[in-house]
Amino acid sequence: MSALKELRGLDREARLLEHVAATMSWDQETYMPEGAVDERAAQQSLLQGLIHERTSSQRVGELLGRWLHDPRAQWPAQGVSRTDGEDLSEVDLAFIREKHRQYRHAVSLPERLVREMAETASRSQNEWVLARKENDFSRFKPWLEKLIILNRETADCLGYSGVRYDALLDQYEPGVSTAEVKDVFASLRKSLVSLVQRISAAEQPDGSFLEQPFPVPQQVTFNEEVMTALGYDLRRGRMDRSAHPFTTTLGSDDVRITTRYDEKLLTSALFSTIHEVGHALYELGVGEELRGTLLAEGTSLGIHESQSRMWENMIGRSKPFWQHWLPRLQQIFPSELKNVDLERFYRAINRVAPSLIRVEADEVTYSLHIIMRFELEQALISGDLSTGDLPGAWREKSRDLLGVVPDTDAQGVLQDVHWSMGAFGYFPTYALGNLYAAQFLNVMERDLPLFRESVAQGNTAPVLDWLRRNIHRYGRVRSAAELVQQITGGPLDPAPFVAYLEKKYGELYRLQGG
Amino acid sequence: MSALKELRGLDREARLLEHVAATMSWDQETYMPEGAVDERAAQQSLLQGLIHERTSSQRVGELLGRWLHDPRAQWPAQGVSRTDGEDLSEVDLAFIREKHRQYRHAVSLPERLVREMAETASRSQNEWVLARKENDFSRFKPWLEKLIILNRETADCLGYSGVRYDALLDQYEPGVSTAEVKDVFASLRKSLVSLVQRISAAEQPDGSFLEQPFPVPQQVTFNEEVMTALGYDLRRGRMDRSAHPFTTTLGSDDVRITTRYDEKLLTSALFSTIHEVGHALYELGVGEELRGTLLAEGTSLGIHESQSRMWENMIGRSKPFWQHWLPRLQQIFPSELKNVDLERFYRAINRVAPSLIRVEADEVTYSLHIIMRFELEQALISGDLSTGDLPGAWREKSRDLLGVVPDTDAQGVLQDVHWSMGAFGYFPTYALGNLYAAQFLNVMERDLPLFRESVAQGNTAPVLDWLRRNIHRYGRVRSAAELVQQITGGPLDPAPFVAYLEKKYGELYRLQGG
Repeated sequence: MSALKELRGLDREARLLEHVAATMSWDQETYMPEGAVDERAAQQSLLQGLIHERTSSQRVGELLGRWLHDPRAQWPAQGVSRTDGEDLSEVDLAFIREKHRQYRHAVSLPERLVREMAETASRSQNEWVLARKENDFSRFKPWLEKLIILNRETADCLGYSGVRYDALLDQYEPGVSTAEVKDVFASLRKSLVSLVQRISAAEQPDGSFLEQPFPVPQQVTFNEEVMTALGYDLRRGRMDRSAHPFTTTLGSDDVRITTRYDEKLLTSALFSTIHEVGHALYELGVGEELRGTLLAEGTSLGIHESQSRMWENMIGRSKPFWQHWLPRLQQIFPSELKNVDLERFYRAINRVAPSLIRVEADEVTYSLHIIMRFELEQALISGDLSTGDLPGAWREKSRDLLGVVPDTDAQGVLQDVHWSMGAFGYFPTYALGNLYAAQFLNVMERDLPLFRESVAQGNTAPVLDWLRRNIHRYGRVRSAAELVQQITGGPLDPAPFVAYLEKKYGELYRLQGG
Repeated sequence: MSALKELRGLDREARLLEHVAATMSWDQETYMPEGAVDERAAQQSLLQGLIHERTSSQRVGELLGRWLHDPRAQWPAQGVSRTDGEDLSEVDLAFIREKHRQYRHAVSLPERLVREMAETASRSQNEWVLARKENDFSRFKPWLEKLIILNRETADCLGYSGVRYDALLDQYEPGVSTAEVKDVFASLRKSLVSLVQRISAAEQPDGSFLEQPFPVPQQVTFNEEVMTALGYDLRRGRMDRSAHPFTTTLGSDDVRITTRYDEKLLTSALFSTIHEVGHALYELGVGEELRGTLLAEGTSLGIHESQSRMWENMIGRSKPFWQHWLPRLQQIFPSELKNVDLERFYRAINRVAPSLIRVEADEVTYSLHIIMRFELEQALISGDLSTGDLPGAWREKSRDLLGVVPDTDAQGVLQDVHWSMGAFGYFPTYALGNLYAAQFLNVMERDLPLFRESVAQGNTAPVLDWLRRNIHRYGRVRSAAELVQQITGGPLDPAPFVAYLEKKYGELYRLQGG
């Protein structure tokens, strides 16, 4: 058997186990009875151990040695170093590259640490749900502390050249450094602050009609119609409810999303559903030839987020989209939306107002939420901030960046699931996603000059088709930087996103010189 | 480390993986999107292989060798043969006995066969669902054929002294032979035929009011109330819907049930819910000291069925039970049940009428459904009956035993999930359950002379408590035969069940000399 074939066989087994573990997590977040939490942690820990064995075994190292002098070292700058005249396709090369990345990651982390992280994360998620429900940060604090210690240990095992946080960030957005993110965010923050200032001085649209009671069963009906119309195939997915919306891949033909309903805020479930559909379409659009391998998923969290936020904001919060969907929404909520015309609705769903909850933030202030979390988690990892001081630091940053302060920790530091999952270095990818999305949108507009007319007729298929052809089908074959370069002809650039916001909100708020 | 401690560690890992596999099956039966079926089969196959490795490894054999001269041989009649002065408790001895049984079973079956059975069963269940929906036996036939071949191979690997079917039966009801079942069923059939004849000649109660439309949401409300009142704790379980109701154990604190609703038949979901609750209470009542081991489950399917059928029929279809619950049911369905008094309701839910669907059969004819399946599956395994002739044979037996013939295969040979799961030798345990249950009921009545008064007040806690103390807490520590001997002072005996039916239905139908 060739080395490549054997490596593919081992990869297949690891992938199957990862999908099993994903199913167990999905169940925990949706339907699992609360009493099962301890044993579920033990089940997850065992599965993670089995996956670790399969991705870091000596045999995997030997097989990688066919192409790499030292599989434990960083990826050679020149790519695969020894091919011995072998005819390797782009997919083969990417497979070896990602397999190496995974192997190096796995052998750098002792099995004990992997198991402890999985078990702690599983339990602490449960504690987080209860802490948030009871608005009791102290209940979550010891778990958070343990997760920070485990993350520092992880970073030290993985290695880094700059700061510890680099190693954590690299897990989610390979090849991007803390320093780069700081630079990009500095520029972004400046533009956003200026835009928010000008918007605040302008006349505010009336969004109050969105906050009356909208019975949940009818919301479900509308969400399901939109979700299906966007191309999410229920033979290969499903939608359930959970405390925090997410998308998860349980197999090549099983990508599930969740949402949560707020009876008093129509837009809450709606836009989070469209957001998750964006993630799911990416995972479901991966090329057939990558099926069942580690290449069959999104290439980075930033690119993933570019998909979800393009659907949520650039399509889902656009006027053409609602030209088609508003009449249907009015059929479902006739009395609630009686006097609401397209312009009023469009302005209401795009109202810019600094607020407390990240997942309900508008398109302009959203990235300020991210910048805040990025700064806090860097400080937690470096030790500049203690967990005891975190709720206070949260309130302070919230005041500085957004101008609003949460009354409760449930609406503040306890609002997001990420830290309870042990995920540090994850948040910045959300803002990178906005930047990538705007870069892609520019090119799509050039390729499909009439796509907005199609969206206005309820047909988003051209958009999905463009995304599939240019992004989805490559899975992890091309890195984020390669995709951006190939599609736009240049590197990551915050300018298109700022220009997009200036144009959209300049018109919407009738800003001067916009 | 002592041999026992090491064996317990290995067992723990196998149990965790079995619970993971159970979660994957539960998901497949309840929520999994249809497109995922192929990959789910591969996931299950991998998990079964991992479990097989952990229960049949050389090390397990070596450890068992501490107590057994040859762990591959049948369990020595004298029990553990070498204890070297070790102080083994009843639980330790049972653990070694069951570990040996599992090991012998596992090493007898090649991993290839285990994987093929799991994969085929997973796929064929999906085909069965579609075949039943489309009333197309030919769609299911090739899968059934393959499962029969795999079952014969399984029996040959496991070994048997009488007929091949013995080995299959022993998987579900250890220690019971085909010949014994034939004897018991011969006696049972005679008594049932006589009773059914006398009942058919009597005046029939009117059950028509049960078959009007009962809106499903209200049925759900009532089912959930009953389920909770019986002691099923939703912190350690949950109820969902599936094509065929089942109970499954996903962990020590996670035992789930499913049901299915028929809007036009109130009793369909109701009694299947009570039935599954009976199974779940057994699994949830296992003693703390057995937690997480292979002893923490029902000791045989027959004993399991004794629990579900005792709750379903002997409690759930008794007059005292409805003395409490009928007023509540009438609150929920006021117009539907306006003129129905306790006597009329009691007679209606106990109406004896030969019918097509096993899971909806009455208490008297139910065992005739089982005898029919027992005879057919024996013939399929022996080769006396081909799968092509099965639908015809089904209709013929149905005419002979029940006097009714299904119009469609969906209502006939395709009605049960068992064969599609590859389970042959399973059906007879249902009828054994009836017999065990009546034997236990006799003793319970002696121990708790006032339990019916308590049930009539809506309090079934004394019943659950008695079952926990006498049966549940032992898990698999005591075999079916040991439990029956210990509780009743004698062996398996069909007489109490026949006497129970004669008394109940003699009164209900006012039979002469009853």
